[in-house]
Amino acid sequence: MGKVYLVGAGPGDPELLTLKAVRILACANIVLHDSLVSGEVLARVSAGSNIIDVGKRCGRKLLTQDEINSLLVSYAASNEVVVRLKGGDPLIFGRAGEELEALREAGVEFEIVPGITAAIGAAAAAGISLTDRRIASQILFSTFSRRSDADAMDWGAVTPATTLVLYMPGPDYGGVAQRLREAGLPSELPCVIVSNATSSQQQIRWTTVATLAHEEKLPAPALLIVGRVATQRAQEITANFWAEREGFVAPAEIYSGGVERPVS
Amino acid sequence: MGKVYLVGAGPGDPELLTLKAVRILACANIVLHDSLVSGEVLARVSAGSNIIDVGKRCGRKLLTQDEINSLLVSYAASNEVVVRLKGGDPLIFGRAGEELEALREAGVEFEIVPGITAAIGAAAAAGISLTDRRIASQILFSTFSRRSDADAMDWGAVTPATTLVLYMPGPDYGGVAQRLREAGLPSELPCVIVSNATSSQQQIRWTTVATLAHEEKLPAPALLIVGRVATQRAQEITANFWAEREGFVAPAEIYSGGVERPVS
Repeated sequence: MGKVYLVGAGPGDPELLTLKAVRILACANIVLHDSLVSGEVLARVSAGSNIIDVGKRCGRKLLTQDEINSLLVSYAASNEVVVRLKGGDPLIFGRAGEELEALREAGVEFEIVPGITAAIGAAAAAGISLTDRRIASQILFSTFSRRSDADAMDWGAVTPATTLVLYMPGPDYGGVAQRLREAGLPSELPCVIVSNATSSQQQIRWTTVATLAHEEKLPAPALLIVGRVATQRAQEITANFWAEREGFVAPAEIYSGGVERPVS
Repeated sequence: MGKVYLVGAGPGDPELLTLKAVRILACANIVLHDSLVSGEVLARVSAGSNIIDVGKRCGRKLLTQDEINSLLVSYAASNEVVVRLKGGDPLIFGRAGEELEALREAGVEFEIVPGITAAIGAAAAAGISLTDRRIASQILFSTFSRRSDADAMDWGAVTPATTLVLYMPGPDYGGVAQRLREAGLPSELPCVIVSNATSSQQQIRWTTVATLAHEEKLPAPALLIVGRVATQRAQEITANFWAEREGFVAPAEIYSGGVERPVS
């Protein structure tokens, strides 16, 4: 019986693979990867190994999640080193939960090799501190396109000092902007769209909640960072800027209890 | 004029450095590092370079943040490759914001090399999917010890399908548990304390909001993951478990609008 490694491939740049990921890819017998994993990363896989794309093509799944779970278990029976390779980090929006459960139920040994998640790659690309202590104290990682359930995306229910990172915002920027406004986020709140973060196709668009709807659509994979930190203008990175801002309306009680003074 | 690299050293295991971090450490002229960066990571720094500890010792800062900012700017004037090396990722609870501003103001070229943040290292160590789509849809990265301001830690204001990750929870588990209950989180909600994640001193303690206060204190650096996903019991990783749970009290209006059915 072999071992299954759930490995994070990082956000795009193959140099953002960890040493551990590189070591394991180099001795893999079989690799099951998502469509987000680049050819440059797959070039790190040992020459004799079997590489299988289990991702999506044009929005259509090549394999169901149940089929992937079964494959991992059955490959582990006949291969020493089985790698499940996912873009970013396997444990953040990577559907690792069901794979881990299948492996546990089947008694297959496994190990998780973390990767640089897209939010961290995008923040590095844009050069913004997600938790700048002068104006931000928390980060919420959420999604937009994955589900239409409003309750799941409870973005208004966080303090104004929370940075919101939306994975997979999709091409409907107008819909995202509307939802942000409905959540009570102020129109002038900065946001930044980062497409293909850290890869050679990287594009960055600085905008605001008010202007997001009119931005040119950037290619997937993309990510949207919303919050006071998501700006290139140094003067906005101060507590006073936000405290004195006209039109900075508090969404319900939670917002009015918000933090407007510098963090000690 | 040289260039400053803000580099993430990852959560502990030196094999979780990225290829890029290793390359830059190997050609650094000077490295300013935090106390969380291990000797094994520092062993990757080129032999001839100057290594300066700018972190804390016994809770006491060796240098102020302003002093560190000034050092980065002045070292860049006389060194080709200046590295600011931080545990985890530089942009998550790493105080990079002020350093970036100082570099921008001084016209110093810089680049950010992302690292595996502690939350991702801890989740990998514990083997839990932070966004298991059956029971979780969002992740909130917050802190406990950094500030006493209740408004900043608005943990109750997120859906029950949000995984809460507390960086630096500190040794006052009773205080953390009380704050979690005040935020409306149910007593039976699982949590896991991960100390020294991914390092050889790693310790993991599975507990709940109700029992957290009585757990043995684990050494810093530690991290607390709170939420439905933070369990080893597979039966808890189902929407039905939580929907049918007695005593699962909704904190205010937001909670009652929460998501109890599986994510499509």
